[in-house]
Amino acid sequence: MNEIREVLINEKYLNKNVNVFGWIKYRRISKEIGFLTITDGSNIEGIQIVFKKNLLSKEKFEKLLNINLFTPVSIKGKLIKNLRNNLNEINLEDFTVLNNVDNDFILGKKEHSLEYLRENAHLRIKTTLFQAIMKIRTTLYSELISFFEKENFYYVAAPIITSNDAEGAGETFKILKNNDKPFFNNVGGVLSVSGQLHAESYAQSLGKVYTFAPTFRAENSNTTKHAAEFWMLEPEMTFYDYFKAMDFGEKMLKVVVRKTLEKCKNEFKVLESILKIKIISELELFLKEDFMKISYKEAIIILKNALEENKVNFDEKNIKFGLDFGTEHERYLTEKHFKKPVYIYDFPFKIKSFYMFKNNDTDNTVRGFDLLVSGIGELIGGSQREYRYETLLQSLKEKNINSKDLEWYLNLRKSGYAPSSGFGLGFERLMIFVTKMENIRDVIPFPRTPGKLLF
Amino acid sequence: MNEIREVLINEKYLNKNVNVFGWIKYRRISKEIGFLTITDGSNIEGIQIVFKKNLLSKEKFEKLLNINLFTPVSIKGKLIKNLRNNLNEINLEDFTVLNNVDNDFILGKKEHSLEYLRENAHLRIKTTLFQAIMKIRTTLYSELISFFEKENFYYVAAPIITSNDAEGAGETFKILKNNDKPFFNNVGGVLSVSGQLHAESYAQSLGKVYTFAPTFRAENSNTTKHAAEFWMLEPEMTFYDYFKAMDFGEKMLKVVVRKTLEKCKNEFKVLESILKIKIISELELFLKEDFMKISYKEAIIILKNALEENKVNFDEKNIKFGLDFGTEHERYLTEKHFKKPVYIYDFPFKIKSFYMFKNNDTDNTVRGFDLLVSGIGELIGGSQREYRYETLLQSLKEKNINSKDLEWYLNLRKSGYAPSSGFGLGFERLMIFVTKMENIRDVIPFPRTPGKLLF
Repeated sequence: MNEIREVLINEKYLNKNVNVFGWIKYRRISKEIGFLTITDGSNIEGIQIVFKKNLLSKEKFEKLLNINLFTPVSIKGKLIKNLRNNLNEINLEDFTVLNNVDNDFILGKKEHSLEYLRENAHLRIKTTLFQAIMKIRTTLYSELISFFEKENFYYVAAPIITSNDAEGAGETFKILKNNDKPFFNNVGGVLSVSGQLHAESYAQSLGKVYTFAPTFRAENSNTTKHAAEFWMLEPEMTFYDYFKAMDFGEKMLKVVVRKTLEKCKNEFKVLESILKIKIISELELFLKEDFMKISYKEAIIILKNALEENKVNFDEKNIKFGLDFGTEHERYLTEKHFKKPVYIYDFPFKIKSFYMFKNNDTDNTVRGFDLLVSGIGELIGGSQREYRYETLLQSLKEKNINSKDLEWYLNLRKSGYAPSSGFGLGFERLMIFVTKMENIRDVIPFPRTPGKLLF
Repeated sequence: MNEIREVLINEKYLNKNVNVFGWIKYRRISKEIGFLTITDGSNIEGIQIVFKKNLLSKEKFEKLLNINLFTPVSIKGKLIKNLRNNLNEINLEDFTVLNNVDNDFILGKKEHSLEYLRENAHLRIKTTLFQAIMKIRTTLYSELISFFEKENFYYVAAPIITSNDAEGAGETFKILKNNDKPFFNNVGGVLSVSGQLHAESYAQSLGKVYTFAPTFRAENSNTTKHAAEFWMLEPEMTFYDYFKAMDFGEKMLKVVVRKTLEKCKNEFKVLESILKIKIISELELFLKEDFMKISYKEAIIILKNALEENKVNFDEKNIKFGLDFGTEHERYLTEKHFKKPVYIYDFPFKIKSFYMFKNNDTDNTVRGFDLLVSGIGELIGGSQREYRYETLLQSLKEKNINSKDLEWYLNLRKSGYAPSSGFGLGFERLMIFVTKMENIRDVIPFPRTPGKLLF
């Protein structure tokens, strides 16, 4: 048995007998000769199989005339070079059908909408588009983990079941045993909204750690950028201040995007041809440019000026200190004004989380930062952490958060807490940024959104 | 700022001024000279800091006399070579305390039990033992992902929230919104017990895929080998029969264990010295030996003979076809009889899952397999999948499983399902096997077990 990617370009199998397995993706037949394309997932192109009437039994030739698309087959034949495209193809000598196909359960000839495909995961994954998306997702995932391994980070498996909602950042899912009784005696469990607090506690001995795991929001938001279940990457770097963390985030994104571009050239070409947009050149530009860094106050001035000079028309026009930027403001800054990725830092305390380090200024700003990129808005959100026990306790009070629930987190500040910074990256947002797909559901194998639970 | 691992062995910093950050792990002081060991997580050893009374201000020297262990500090000084151990150390010139430490919130001098440390995650991770465990866990994790990347697998993020319990394999957790209403209109959600069924559907286009994500059991089992939340790795290989899948599992384990041994030599030595057991030589032996493969029926004969010849005394003595092996039987086979890892295959249908391929024999055996290893029992469980629609439907009936819930999975068999095999590996069981830790709770950063939900 040979994988198709091996025999498609490898010279060593030329003019030899090979045996490949795959699904029939395409068929073209004339009276005397036929062509199949079969794929086994090992590459995006598949391989061409040529069969001739005079070289097959009548029975076998007719079987191929009538065979359903997506039938899994075993193909035996001689590997030859097709001189027109310089790729190898197989002169069919024999084949076996591995399972039958019911025409009602495969992709039809008409093109299906993305919505239809979402509800039919087994059909969706048979399209070339989603095969390309899954290859890119795999590569981004592996390259992120490989990056953190090379940077000498520890991986901390943050728990999915937690006893608190971490940052009061959103509605949570509650978990029970199937008999509706709680499984944990002391407290009810909820599904994690972030692994940050757990990562911090480990970073206070291991130095540099990251979590990478599913996180959850029980919010009823049906937008193209939100899902109830999504993967979050959260690096935490002790001894880093927030500027160092921003630089590290830039380095991380550039390394993984560059490697994914290199490894998935064919898949990006497939995306470009199906979606009819430019992706490769845009990502190459992204790799070349230095990210901007501006303070929140500077961002306010830019947005205010843009509005006053009628360069833009925001739905939210009340641009002043304290405004929590919407996507329209974020995208203006990165897409129109700077035309490159922008970090915003030093936000007002009142619009950010309790755990961010308070600056010593009269405006009560905190050392939080957001990375804005085109097409998305916020891709990364991070901060330097508050390491002063009393200040952190005060921040919890100001946010009306019960400090009892976070006692263990507060007490970290008494057990040798060194200054630390970190950030969160929504992995599916990175997928949207890289693939230019518009809906987060289309970069997730089995998306979970309000009211929908298939498979 | 320099990481400790860099300056400890790198010649290029010798006799230069360096600045490291870390926690004070150890202190020894005489009248004129003192020694600190500080660690920053970048290596397991830390680095030695030497300070001399006549080279520091009186105030600074006295501060170091009284400083609490685990205080985070910034250290400046000259890097010199210690000729006794050939490691670099720092001649202290100046230091800064980064945060204060409350003695009630740090590890004390007396040795804590593993049980105590489990309930105090922030203390546990400050021990050298757990630092070593986390490094090994990180390396195993990265090496697994790197292995599947090199083997050209696709990564499929299996969903955590699912609509069914996959295999009826155990009790599930149910999820609700915090207001006790269901989030998904149509069905209640449960936490995944396995990503296999989802992986299969993607493998039917991508060929070779794997999932690697948390899975859950709401069972009230308080053993040293069970947790309510654990990470499961599940490769699925279309076009593989079960023997090929077994060989692949052997290859995978050997590659990742070999690489982890190479990269974590120091951490394994720390484990050996703390636990006072042999680990490295045992793992090296594991790498050398070929795994055995025997059928379930052969295993029954071996166990029966052992019992009859009084070589062993099992709690369960009724050894006959149909017995679901207990850990005592599994460990006898691998530890005593074969003294190496053993695959058992061709189990009776009635003790295995509905989705396994039925052999054409009168005993109704299925192409399932388990890998047994010493110290654990079952490390891997897998099978060739049933690809025949009618047979699968029949198997569901025989197991009294409502096929309505699994309609999408059944229907895969109509959409071009090629023969496929795969297996599941409990990642924490692999951690137990590699580290020889006895309790699964001690290889998980934040363990979840019945009645316990801390952090």
